[in-house]
Amino acid sequence: MKNFFSPKSVAVVGASDSPGKVGYSVMNNLIDFGFAGKIFPINPKSETVQGIKAYKSILDVQDDIDLAVVIIPPKFIPELIDQCGEKNIDSVVIISAGFKETGYEGSLLEKEVVARAEKHNIRVLGPNCLGIIDTFSSLNASFSNGSPSRGSISFFSQSGALCTAILDWAIGEKIGFSKFISIGNKADISAVDMLEALAEDENTRVILGYIEGVKDGRKFMETARRVTKKKPIIIIKAGSTQAGAKAAASHTGTLAGSEKAFKSAFLQSGIIQADSIEELFDCAIAFSRQPIIKGDRIAIVTNAGGPGILAADACEKNGVTLASFTTETVEKLQACLPSVAAFYNPVDVIGDAKADRYKAAVEALLQDEFVDGILLILTPQQMTEVAGTALALAELTKRYDKPILTSFMGQATIKKGLSVLNKKKIPNYPYPERAVSAFREMINYKKILERVEHKTEAVRINTEWIGEIIDRQIACGSYSLGEQDSRKILKALGFKIPRSEVAETSSEAAVMATEIGFPVVMKIVSPNILHKSDIGGVKVGMRDEQEVKRAFNEIMNNAVRYTSNTNITGVSVQQMITTGKEVILGITYDSIFGHMLMFGLGGVYVEVLKDVSFRICPVNKDDVWHMIREIRSFPLLSGVRGEGLSDLDSLEDSLFKLAQVIQDFPQIIEADINPLMVMKKGDGVYAIDARFILKA
Amino acid sequence: MKNFFSPKSVAVVGASDSPGKVGYSVMNNLIDFGFAGKIFPINPKSETVQGIKAYKSILDVQDDIDLAVVIIPPKFIPELIDQCGEKNIDSVVIISAGFKETGYEGSLLEKEVVARAEKHNIRVLGPNCLGIIDTFSSLNASFSNGSPSRGSISFFSQSGALCTAILDWAIGEKIGFSKFISIGNKADISAVDMLEALAEDENTRVILGYIEGVKDGRKFMETARRVTKKKPIIIIKAGSTQAGAKAAASHTGTLAGSEKAFKSAFLQSGIIQADSIEELFDCAIAFSRQPIIKGDRIAIVTNAGGPGILAADACEKNGVTLASFTTETVEKLQACLPSVAAFYNPVDVIGDAKADRYKAAVEALLQDEFVDGILLILTPQQMTEVAGTALALAELTKRYDKPILTSFMGQATIKKGLSVLNKKKIPNYPYPERAVSAFREMINYKKILERVEHKTEAVRINTEWIGEIIDRQIACGSYSLGEQDSRKILKALGFKIPRSEVAETSSEAAVMATEIGFPVVMKIVSPNILHKSDIGGVKVGMRDEQEVKRAFNEIMNNAVRYTSNTNITGVSVQQMITTGKEVILGITYDSIFGHMLMFGLGGVYVEVLKDVSFRICPVNKDDVWHMIREIRSFPLLSGVRGEGLSDLDSLEDSLFKLAQVIQDFPQIIEADINPLMVMKKGDGVYAIDARFILKA
Repeated sequence: MKNFFSPKSVAVVGASDSPGKVGYSVMNNLIDFGFAGKIFPINPKSETVQGIKAYKSILDVQDDIDLAVVIIPPKFIPELIDQCGEKNIDSVVIISAGFKETGYEGSLLEKEVVARAEKHNIRVLGPNCLGIIDTFSSLNASFSNGSPSRGSISFFSQSGALCTAILDWAIGEKIGFSKFISIGNKADISAVDMLEALAEDENTRVILGYIEGVKDGRKFMETARRVTKKKPIIIIKAGSTQAGAKAAASHTGTLAGSEKAFKSAFLQSGIIQADSIEELFDCAIAFSRQPIIKGDRIAIVTNAGGPGILAADACEKNGVTLASFTTETVEKLQACLPSVAAFYNPVDVIGDAKADRYKAAVEALLQDEFVDGILLILTPQQMTEVAGTALALAELTKRYDKPILTSFMGQATIKKGLSVLNKKKIPNYPYPERAVSAFREMINYKKILERVEHKTEAVRINTEWIGEIIDRQIACGSYSLGEQDSRKILKALGFKIPRSEVAETSSEAAVMATEIGFPVVMKIVSPNILHKSDIGGVKVGMRDEQEVKRAFNEIMNNAVRYTSNTNITGVSVQQMITTGKEVILGITYDSIFGHMLMFGLGGVYVEVLKDVSFRICPVNKDDVWHMIREIRSFPLLSGVRGEGLSDLDSLEDSLFKLAQVIQDFPQIIEADINPLMVMKKGDGVYAIDARFILKA
Repeated sequence: MKNFFSPKSVAVVGASDSPGKVGYSVMNNLIDFGFAGKIFPINPKSETVQGIKAYKSILDVQDDIDLAVVIIPPKFIPELIDQCGEKNIDSVVIISAGFKETGYEGSLLEKEVVARAEKHNIRVLGPNCLGIIDTFSSLNASFSNGSPSRGSISFFSQSGALCTAILDWAIGEKIGFSKFISIGNKADISAVDMLEALAEDENTRVILGYIEGVKDGRKFMETARRVTKKKPIIIIKAGSTQAGAKAAASHTGTLAGSEKAFKSAFLQSGIIQADSIEELFDCAIAFSRQPIIKGDRIAIVTNAGGPGILAADACEKNGVTLASFTTETVEKLQACLPSVAAFYNPVDVIGDAKADRYKAAVEALLQDEFVDGILLILTPQQMTEVAGTALALAELTKRYDKPILTSFMGQATIKKGLSVLNKKKIPNYPYPERAVSAFREMINYKKILERVEHKTEAVRINTEWIGEIIDRQIACGSYSLGEQDSRKILKALGFKIPRSEVAETSSEAAVMATEIGFPVVMKIVSPNILHKSDIGGVKVGMRDEQEVKRAFNEIMNNAVRYTSNTNITGVSVQQMITTGKEVILGITYDSIFGHMLMFGLGGVYVEVLKDVSFRICPVNKDDVWHMIREIRSFPLLSGVRGEGLSDLDSLEDSLFKLAQVIQDFPQIIEADINPLMVMKKGDGVYAIDARFILKA
């Protein structure tokens, strides 16, 4: 991407002298922002554009061209790409719209452009985008209104208009950026390329993105996982809810992936997901201007009780820890604050605090090893030294390596303070709650950095057996495995399963039950009946031969009402697992990210409360550990009500086995092990029932 | 409160000529803001203060004084109050600090001041406050920095410093206020008085409050319930997460806490609870500047796809409905927008839209009867007419009575548009998500207005029986009712309860079980054992005499390990209700709001998932209807998985009965009916077990 960010020469294909035209703005921005390389306007009708010698075609330019920025009508672009190839240009930004976003014909044209670019080894940014800005190479190859100042935030966006709005905000708020990239239709260069490039960019400390979808979910995750170890990635994903997804489909034609898949993908790859544009930038500013936090303990310093309490409330709601100070710190605070001050968290320096008092308190807290970050709240009262306090803080940030966020509240009289804070790179938030949210994500990122990247657990399973079963099914044209075959797969996966035999008569059933041991479960066996209990095909808890015989007859009577006799294999008589917790393990397939593993407590927990967790496959130790613990009903497995701990180790193993089977047999696109009975610690698990669906 | 808001004359007790003193600021603000009435500075040492004739004492003033503002040291204030009484002053603002907030002695002094004020029929605002501002009577009797412009928002705050910050913000943002009241320590005038006064104030359209607590919860709710029918009340409650999860004898007690009490109180009285200061003012501006919304269907109009999707996402997350347009509207849009525009919600007028195109689209939507409000999003693109679009909108707001909120995104180039929007009273939010949150609360308020205020249901219960039981218990000094007495209360309340008898030997138990009918439940009966199942004192599902005998012995063995033989009455043998859904009903007592009613699904739903709902008593039809439906597991009662509807009518009755018993016997401070078995529709409920705790 080097020639996109810091080209030595730029050709503007479609450069114009008429203000109001995009080709005018791009030229104007290139010149205005002080691009130091050569600029070659391409315009068949003019001798010069904006005072610079123009060329009829890029082929007429003698010098080398590193980057071509294209603003001509779409239909001329395929040919232009060939010319770029001829001219050895390897980087092209297509700003022009009129491609995939306009419908079928546009999408054909877009494919044509990409095909020709590939042939010439040309990388394409766009089409249908705002362009690209790099403040460090003084390149503004876009039709933006104005240019941002230098800073360490880089932003890429699938929405050009959002770029415009954010740029306008950044210029107004004097927030610096390193790179600003509008990726448009992502015909070639994608979010993945952006992550790769920005990871390497030494001027970028934090990567922001607005995306509506991604093409290659796996690659996106792999790349993000690597990059987040170097610098934070914060992304806002639009179209994340159903209504949003509809809007996305009619917008750039991007297929929005399911919300759960994206959430899991972000979580697993360490991306911070912002819930709103405000949160995106609130976090960005914190990361770009303050050091990485080392722990999760925050001290609040305030000159007003009320906002201090609100900040403490916000900490509790956001899972941010209020630091407990050492005795030494409390003594220091007592020495520097008036007696009516509050010496514990939140520290109240009292309404008449001037800069020196704020400074003494903050310094005492920075020295406390149990404090990882400071939130300083200031309300403009009579004696308050707004700018002075900001300067005092700035002095402290030089000497201590702990993040400080501020909330100078108000507007009219705090302006001077805000401009000092901005200059000194101390992030300010108009309300303390927003600063706390930023701290939450800083702490979150610290945890991402500390994450040990376990390898995916490889589990040995009997692939031969499973392969045979699957091959036989496919040969029959059957894509939904019956109970017996599913049981075989469970066995091949190494699951303990309850003893089970199929009886054809009631007396046979009674004999089998006696052998297996009471109580037993009985179920209809028929390839035609998938939802057995719905038709009265399941009976549980038969305790003697009489009950078994009666159950056999009832089940058969119910079944013949539903399907013909010839389709009924018999009734299975199964060992009944009477203790343990019912859980469900599952596999589903997302069109973007592929196989996903699901976990939840069985029965109503899954069906009514939808209390389940997801991870994209493959999964590692941490993934599985967390997915078991993040469901709300987890305490049922960890031993509430004196019930003792369930066998969580075996549960983890079970999830790995299921993940492994789809690793080895990706043609399985859906699976349920439901229920899996988790026995008490040390006693393992029983897989009672399962279903596997193959890709048709 | 008339003399607080629009006095004809004000005495400033402690007026000063020295800048930096509070007594200087108050005088200066009074004069500067253009107070039209007479000002009497009181200062024993000066002839004049800030050019106005001063008096040694208020008693020296010949004219009438409507309001006294006090800034003298606390110790002189009791005597001053007497002088105010003598001078027939009925309204006093005490700005001075040094009272309750400083500790015990200060609180004594505060009591003394209040006592003397009561004697003279004087109302006191404060002490320890910033003062009071009324923009319509041009009164600024506070030590604020500057004064706000006129507007229809009134704000009262328990935190003076928060007032300062908000004022500063309001002045900077040019947000108008009607009244600004710092209520300080609330020694006399409370939040309730504020609600009463601001409800009557014709210049106030929306009431905002910051509170940390209230004194009389009941009166607060009653007042709020009345006032919210006239105008919206939005409150931010600080210290909301410091919920005292107290160690209580009942489930209900453990699950309650002050946060839940406040949430219920706000909900029941129609107060909108803001989660952050930002939300408080985002809502305030919407309510103060736009008409009440008539439904919940919003149309989004945007010139940028991305922000449109984000807004649609936010609508879904916030439960705001995206309007579906009539065919007529879609045709109108097709007529006024280019063919590549999006004609369905969100409507995309495309990046090159000027003011006229925005206007045509918005007007078409305003005319659609299925659209209740408009969210207009604008990003500053090349052709965008920022100020023009704002003016076009302003013209439309005059002719249509539907709320319009905007999100002009950016800063540098949209400033002119923002100032037009501000002048024309169209609320703007920097990001669309915040506008959607404001719509959510507008819709919420519309529902509050539509709420039918059902009277509390009076239920006939046998008060004589219950009175006897309670009296006898109290006579014995026992405050926790045993199972037998609790069963009697259930009977008196008209609950169906399972048959039950207490056995002292295993054979007696077997006989009883045979009489009652199998299966049975067996439980230890002992005044010393509250959590019976924790000690192995409960066995369920005994199906024959043998099992009953065995269970009897096991229970007794478990119990004697826990308490002495003499404290064990025996083992109850109870009819086992084998169908129905387990729910829990409860009562707890909150120190501010009094009795609260709780509802939840029994067992793990309550204990692990804490899936419960609360209401402050007394409750009406709506309260009970909603509290049953707001738990997450409600689908279990409404018939999922083909199970059929539960008897919700009987469940509602049961909640009313429990609410009634604490109405008649407020000495009951905690109660659990756990479980209550809810049978299928038409079959009523069974109260299986209960516990009542009396006030010690």
